[in-house]
Amino acid sequence: MVDEIPGFWAVVPAGGAGTRLWPLSRSRAPKFLHDLTGSGRSLLEQTQDRLAPLVGDRLLVVTGEAHRTAVRAQLATLPDDAVVAEPSARDSMAAIGLAAALLGRRGAEVMGSFAADHVITDPDGFAAAVAAAVDAARDGWLVTIGIEPTFASSAFGYIRQGDDLPGHPAARKVAEFVEKPSVPVAEEYLATGRYRWNAGMFVVRPTVLLDLLAEQDPGFAATLRTIAAEPDRLPELWETLPRIAIDHAVAEPAAAAGRVVTIPGGFGWDDIGDFDSLAGLLGDDDACTVLGDPALTRLIGASGIVIPGSGRVVAVIGLDDVVVVDTPDALLVTTRARAQEVKNVVSALRDQGRTDLV
Amino acid sequence: MVDEIPGFWAVVPAGGAGTRLWPLSRSRAPKFLHDLTGSGRSLLEQTQDRLAPLVGDRLLVVTGEAHRTAVRAQLATLPDDAVVAEPSARDSMAAIGLAAALLGRRGAEVMGSFAADHVITDPDGFAAAVAAAVDAARDGWLVTIGIEPTFASSAFGYIRQGDDLPGHPAARKVAEFVEKPSVPVAEEYLATGRYRWNAGMFVVRPTVLLDLLAEQDPGFAATLRTIAAEPDRLPELWETLPRIAIDHAVAEPAAAAGRVVTIPGGFGWDDIGDFDSLAGLLGDDDACTVLGDPALTRLIGASGIVIPGSGRVVAVIGLDDVVVVDTPDALLVTTRARAQEVKNVVSALRDQGRTDLV
Repeated sequence: MVDEIPGFWAVVPAGGAGTRLWPLSRSRAPKFLHDLTGSGRSLLEQTQDRLAPLVGDRLLVVTGEAHRTAVRAQLATLPDDAVVAEPSARDSMAAIGLAAALLGRRGAEVMGSFAADHVITDPDGFAAAVAAAVDAARDGWLVTIGIEPTFASSAFGYIRQGDDLPGHPAARKVAEFVEKPSVPVAEEYLATGRYRWNAGMFVVRPTVLLDLLAEQDPGFAATLRTIAAEPDRLPELWETLPRIAIDHAVAEPAAAAGRVVTIPGGFGWDDIGDFDSLAGLLGDDDACTVLGDPALTRLIGASGIVIPGSGRVVAVIGLDDVVVVDTPDALLVTTRARAQEVKNVVSALRDQGRTDLV
Repeated sequence: MVDEIPGFWAVVPAGGAGTRLWPLSRSRAPKFLHDLTGSGRSLLEQTQDRLAPLVGDRLLVVTGEAHRTAVRAQLATLPDDAVVAEPSARDSMAAIGLAAALLGRRGAEVMGSFAADHVITDPDGFAAAVAAAVDAARDGWLVTIGIEPTFASSAFGYIRQGDDLPGHPAARKVAEFVEKPSVPVAEEYLATGRYRWNAGMFVVRPTVLLDLLAEQDPGFAATLRTIAAEPDRLPELWETLPRIAIDHAVAEPAAAAGRVVTIPGGFGWDDIGDFDSLAGLLGDDDACTVLGDPALTRLIGASGIVIPGSGRVVAVIGLDDVVVVDTPDALLVTTRARAQEVKNVVSALRDQGRTDLV
């Protein structure tokens, strides 16, 4: 067990539509608000549960204006200023950068950014990795937690590890961040033993992050600091910020400059990219996982995942690796292998003006 | 076109739960009450449409007490006494025998029994076969219309044809009725060219039918005649009647005695035994048939049949020969090949006391 870490704040970006988990995840009720593991806690609540031993109440959620009320309701024990609502979605650099500027003024020594919609099966392992990352961050590094790959995924970006870091036995310098590879390239990466998945977990001093940003885009960093000092100007200034991911804005150039290190994370991480990964996370390949009330299902010769979410009885007969997601206004039937194509249905519905369904 | 046939009445037994078409077909709203072909007319209404040119209003529906109101509503143009409600289901001999006794008193010369839940794609061919059957029935024969087999089905009983019938060029004597065969045996039947499917279409003088029954079970026939004469005694006497199919009670022994003839029927008949046959009837194998509003479906790489029946959007991705049936309180997902097993779900629900769903 890891003790609470003094001066350390957690930032939880709660965004993203999760369109590949439609019809469970909707733009008005994204993935992070749902209990996707049958634990009785939403992914956001589980994220708080996981971070609370490390930070207590020192947690800042950055979410969309549309989700502020739902987020507040799920995190009711946190102080009022624990939730910051973005006027519009402007990608991760604006969200995490604003958090850095705000937390700098609140006296945070180190901050760590952890998405609201990831699953981690070993919270103690997670806590130990975060503690090691905070140690390195105190020395001025931008630290990223690199997930130990469990298969040659083409769905994630990778971190190539470089040299050791004196004084931090678990840490390695980051040689470079690389974009999502093809599966054969990912297999080569795994064979070297030097690559890790980039889960977007950054641990850093707030001032270091903003200074790294200022080296690339001084105006961006200055505007974030202005918003933190004068919160009333958020609506006016927010729309002037560039839409850019923190990876491109800061992490990649900083890595090229030799200023990023990585801490290995082997704590059972999953970003639940689609129903195939959810099925893999929750069940074994031969059985049919039910996420919800099993009394609502009648399964004969079925495997895959069934989510009864409308109160209706769902009968599935003779289908392997099937995905059935039943909600009050929309039903999805597909296979684990084709689960990624759910986003095409969402696009089509949006194009056809069925915004009530997406 | 065939003209109306004087003295000829149609009997339409409207029973059977249609459990293999669950969740569309329910015990409180069986198959015959539904529009299963997308025509805008229920199977019962289509049966009336098909018979009206031959019989006008001379049609008698025998149905369960629970369905009397729904049947009356669908057949609103018929006289009040066109619907007879059985106090309980007692199989086909009681239902058709009661119709024979009632129609004998209403002056019917010949009656023909045609199930309420079959589909016929060539109504003119059907009418011509019925007219030929009535001609033979006027000469005192029990006449059955034998469907020309289109494949070696193991789901139907067969009729083996014997000798010609002088004076009735289309008719053949029935050598015997045979039970549902295995597929290899059915293939042998088809190879001989002498077998036809038994679709339960019997055309006969009411008195001939009751006399044939009396030869096997005099009390049964006498009770039916008593009920027809004293309708108030229906509730009391009905429960004393044997539960037996007309095939066993009359058709088989009469065939053995050389008193049954058959008229060939090649008019595109289907009893829609399950969703596989419904899919085969409505669509081609490469496409996905939608029975209902296509605007409610989003199909990507899907074939089979999708029935959106609850108003919700149904998305199906990457499944061949799939069966998706969406209703307000129950959902079925299976394949055409496994569609017969739907009855197992219905049995399980009934055993578990979920009579609200079956």
